[in-house]
Amino acid sequence: MSKFKKIAAGFSFALLMAGTAHAETLDLEALNALVNANAEQDSYIFGTLLFLIGGFLVMWMAAGFAMLEAGLVRSKNVSMQCLKNISLYAVAGIMFWVVGYSLAYGITEGAFISTAIGPQVFGAGADNSAGYSAASDWFFQMVFCATTASIVSGTLAERIKFWPFLMFTAVLTGFIYPIVASWEWGTGWLDAGGFSDFAGSSLVHSTGGWAALVGAIILGARKGKYENGRVNPMPGSSMPLATLGVFILWFGWFGFNGASQLAMGTIEDVTAVSKIFVNTNLAACAGVVTAIVYTQIRYKKIDLTMALNGALAGLVAITAEPLEPTAVQSLIVGGAGSLLAMLTVPLLDKFKIDDVVGAIPVHLVAGIFGTLVVAWTNTSVGFGIQLKGVLAIAVFTCVTSAIVWLALKYTVGIRVSPEDEDIGLDQAEVGVASYPEFTA
Amino acid sequence: MSKFKKIAAGFSFALLMAGTAHAETLDLEALNALVNANAEQDSYIFGTLLFLIGGFLVMWMAAGFAMLEAGLVRSKNVSMQCLKNISLYAVAGIMFWVVGYSLAYGITEGAFISTAIGPQVFGAGADNSAGYSAASDWFFQMVFCATTASIVSGTLAERIKFWPFLMFTAVLTGFIYPIVASWEWGTGWLDAGGFSDFAGSSLVHSTGGWAALVGAIILGARKGKYENGRVNPMPGSSMPLATLGVFILWFGWFGFNGASQLAMGTIEDVTAVSKIFVNTNLAACAGVVTAIVYTQIRYKKIDLTMALNGALAGLVAITAEPLEPTAVQSLIVGGAGSLLAMLTVPLLDKFKIDDVVGAIPVHLVAGIFGTLVVAWTNTSVGFGIQLKGVLAIAVFTCVTSAIVWLALKYTVGIRVSPEDEDIGLDQAEVGVASYPEFTA
Amino acid sequence: MSKFKKIAAGFSFALLMAGTAHAETLDLEALNALVNANAEQDSYIFGTLLFLIGGFLVMWMAAGFAMLEAGLVRSKNVSMQCLKNISLYAVAGIMFWVVGYSLAYGITEGAFISTAIGPQVFGAGADNSAGYSAASDWFFQMVFCATTASIVSGTLAERIKFWPFLMFTAVLTGFIYPIVASWEWGTGWLDAGGFSDFAGSSLVHSTGGWAALVGAIILGARKGKYENGRVNPMPGSSMPLATLGVFILWFGWFGFNGASQLAMGTIEDVTAVSKIFVNTNLAACAGVVTAIVYTQIRYKKIDLTMALNGALAGLVAITAEPLEPTAVQSLIVGGAGSLLAMLTVPLLDKFKIDDVVGAIPVHLVAGIFGTLVVAWTNTSVGFGIQLKGVLAIAVFTCVTSAIVWLALKYTVGIRVSPEDEDIGLDQAEVGVASYPEFTA
Repeated sequence: MSKFKKIAAGFSFALLMAGTAHAETLDLEALNALVNANAEQDSYIFGTLLFLIGGFLVMWMAAGFAMLEAGLVRSKNVSMQCLKNISLYAVAGIMFWVVGYSLAYGITEGAFISTAIGPQVFGAGADNSAGYSAASDWFFQMVFCATTASIVSGTLAERIKFWPFLMFTAVLTGFIYPIVASWEWGTGWLDAGGFSDFAGSSLVHSTGGWAALVGAIILGARKGKYENGRVNPMPGSSMPLATLGVFILWFGWFGFNGASQLAMGTIEDVTAVSKIFVNTNLAACAGVVTAIVYTQIRYKKIDLTMALNGALAGLVAITAEPLEPTAVQSLIVGGAGSLLAMLTVPLLDKFKIDDVVGAIPVHLVAGIFGTLVVAWTNTSVGFGIQLKGVLAIAVFTCVTSAIVWLALKYTVGIRVSPEDEDIGLDQAEVGVASYPEFTA
Repeated sequence: MSKFKKIAAGFSFALLMAGTAHAETLDLEALNALVNANAEQDSYIFGTLLFLIGGFLVMWMAAGFAMLEAGLVRSKNVSMQCLKNISLYAVAGIMFWVVGYSLAYGITEGAFISTAIGPQVFGAGADNSAGYSAASDWFFQMVFCATTASIVSGTLAERIKFWPFLMFTAVLTGFIYPIVASWEWGTGWLDAGGFSDFAGSSLVHSTGGWAALVGAIILGARKGKYENGRVNPMPGSSMPLATLGVFILWFGWFGFNGASQLAMGTIEDVTAVSKIFVNTNLAACAGVVTAIVYTQIRYKKIDLTMALNGALAGLVAITAEPLEPTAVQSLIVGGAGSLLAMLTVPLLDKFKIDDVVGAIPVHLVAGIFGTLVVAWTNTSVGFGIQLKGVLAIAVFTCVTSAIVWLALKYTVGIRVSPEDEDIGLDQAEVGVASYPEFTA
Repeated sequence: MSKFKKIAAGFSFALLMAGTAHAETLDLEALNALVNANAEQDSYIFGTLLFLIGGFLVMWMAAGFAMLEAGLVRSKNVSMQCLKNISLYAVAGIMFWVVGYSLAYGITEGAFISTAIGPQVFGAGADNSAGYSAASDWFFQMVFCATTASIVSGTLAERIKFWPFLMFTAVLTGFIYPIVASWEWGTGWLDAGGFSDFAGSSLVHSTGGWAALVGAIILGARKGKYENGRVNPMPGSSMPLATLGVFILWFGWFGFNGASQLAMGTIEDVTAVSKIFVNTNLAACAGVVTAIVYTQIRYKKIDLTMALNGALAGLVAITAEPLEPTAVQSLIVGGAGSLLAMLTVPLLDKFKIDDVVGAIPVHLVAGIFGTLVVAWTNTSVGFGIQLKGVLAIAVFTCVTSAIVWLALKYTVGIRVSPEDEDIGLDQAEVGVASYPEFTA
């Protein structure tokens, strides 16, 4: 069809509808029905548009993770990190269609697990009765699922095999994350119990963080990271790329938190989205400022990677409740999330848990904190149920992740050979050097 | 004017309109007219907004091409590739205003070529009667035109002279692409014949691909690319930049395909946009998965550049019909597009056609495939007319491109000297090294 | 709350409202009130949505400045430049909340300075009576404030200390910029006098430019930049990053100029936003073309950094009036802005003013030009008041900036030691090398 014709058709359809009451004898009831239909249509369009805009912003976060991780690994593993990030997004996009969405949103109210399992239908037969397009909702939820997987890839960088990582991703995005999401966003048992996680400090970030933590423990640290009681720094190859990644994530987070209002067809809703934008931004700002002040005092240098992760930790922390806090509360939540993340870094090293990009402090620790602190910022939410939710997600994700990681470890193996680790994954598995002209 | 005042003015204007029926004696007919006017206004705003959002997303694809190509050329030519990409976007933006738009959309229904030629008018005198702002439509169509030119720059990288390349770009964006677009989107003869190309697998991607192919043949391969019957790999300088480029393109493609619905003022339209988002994403996912599986089996490595181009080939393939396919069909179309692109790469080498970034497999081959496969995914479209369209675009673009390339070759010359090719275009023509501290 | 429930609630609320007239005995007056309420609601949503979209686009410009500057400094200072850019955005985001917004928009009409000073309130107690969400407006204005600070960081790169720079940023974003903005956008004395600066050629770009110029003079040039009467080039470390930065800025500028229409709830408003998109793009295109032609003629090379800055200068120049100009005028304004910026570069060198990224030519010179040229493109605006505004902003910003810079200089000091400058700020202050594997 031609672009011109299509427009003409769409537009005259609207005119036709609008004209209904006019063409017949004028009739108050008919006009009233038309007004109601128009209002319903506008609400539907606004809600769908919010999902679409939020969706593409969160999709773009996949690029943010890719750049952040590409910048924080050594140049011999950069191509691999890029490959993993684009591949995990692809796998998440397929798995969430095949089974994930039905697991997450097909659940009976108050239940533990969905029994409605199967691929999503978008065209004829799609159920658009909820007041927005089902496809737009699927798209928006899918990019959240992909985010969970992005968190894992950073922690396990530089020594995990490509295919086993992707197999884990398939399970995580097809099953683990959707089940966790179903408990709350699918109206499952946590939601029934009063748990609150607005945009996923726990559901997305902690779930990814737990999966990463369990993976890191089972996989072990990189060769030479912890030797003779010392922690050997392995500096990332490109700080501007890491910075770019964080800016992309910050940018995308407006979609992540803002569109989680899930509607903008009323003054109330769009005003809520606006406040969410502001609180999200304030928390990230506080995360940065906390990090630069802390590292200046603690290390006498202003650590860029801490500033970057501080922004992210602030964002993760506000994600569980970006609407209710005042500006001051948002600053405190973001700053505290950042501080907690920074304090976790040496702790991980103490236990020789090798988290290449710092995803565990940022997504797991700040995610847990963000979930618990909702009891302070949103007075209608109890601390008990928040803690219960955090623990339930911890147990479920750790157990299921461990099973999958161990199954992979003792079948296909999850770790590259020491030789491959030395020469780097780019040469060993990808066959494409990341910067062929810049390094020896 | 002050920002505050302006708002107040705009808002009170709306209130004024809304109040019309109220101020006078209440009158059903007047209220009915107001309801209709409001509905028309909403439809206009939504349609225009779709063009604006789609437009800035597609504009951003220019950055995607720039990063992809900057990452895939050698460091001695990176500044030049950046320069070409920003310059071609600038030239396209001017040429499409001077003459392109009128050629593309001023055509008589069913005709072969427009006779209404001249610059577009946006302010007083602009025709906004189609139910959206004419300027928003121009902006949206312009960025499509620029995309066509972006395709060419990648193929011909590392040995074409700057100014002749830009002259070709001016002809391509001012005349060749607009004429091709007029046949279908301008309601020309292909549209009249039932040809269907929703967002431009052929009109944009194949047109760019043919122009690139003809250019590559006339220009010849890079020095040393094909020697003694061997193909010498010339690895790109930065894989993360290439990856970033592909993520940008994927992100922008939601605007490219989604906003090609051309309206979102009805439930039907915005639901269609949503389905397009989903299908577009699924096709790209399948493109990636196909590429990583294929390269693993075929080359025993998972080739990152193939994964990246696989995503793009999937996107190009779904572009001709992103609305009608089911999810399964979208996956098949994307996967097959990716596979075909990968199978084309060795074929080009066989004929010593040097396509630096793989734009011909991705945009031309997947574009042709995507156009033909519409006959399967959209049952209202015949295979015959799709094939006819593909061939017509092939003949027209190849002939006109060849004339321009040859005219340039035998007048100003299109190829840099062998010495300049050796030292690189950055030093020869730009005078700014891309990475002065990283390479010898 | 569950995502599903939330939607259901929001939607049924809309239905409830829509049904009001239906449930009771049908009544023309009630229906009329409903129609008016719906229209008002749509206007509110559209206006708020414009601020949110414009806001995230302009927020993204912070990443553009970061990449541009990271690409244009030497690799020993890249981490620092990244750190400064993310930190300044964080500080701006907090200072504009603490005091900036109230200074900018709390002013009495026609006044010189606001006396209503204090943090902004977004939740309960927020004043949303202006026809859009107060929080969305704050967000949109805040990212403009941050832009002003981004301009300064580029000029002073490679030799300014981190903390004093951040202190200046706090004053600039909390006080200097807000006061300047209040004069016009807050309905202060310049607005009362008929001054016109649509999206901030002067208010944002010149203010940042003056602050940068004064800083550059007080700080002095980089070691070795001007020696024995020669200007020593200090090439930037990564041209593709600089190019990416400019593409990001160009992309974000659609939000910067487009959303400065401040409303899109009427056909008139959204049509204006569309024309602004087109004019903004045309000006940038002309900026690029002017730069490549000029540098080809003048230097016999096509200078990439000039092409990039040409795009930006074109954008800055059109920013004071992106709505009224015809397409031809937009091209002229953008082209002339670019040319003026290029002519300024050698002038700065003559006075040994070391502007690392060329921010003064781009933001100050093109900003002044853009403000003055409004008298030509918008016939309702007088040249006299434009000149008066330019001078007032010059005097105020220069004096206040000088006071702050000098106070910092003679207390904490603003310049790193010569040794630190030699080893680079990454090692001296950040402790994180930008590219540890690529440079010796």
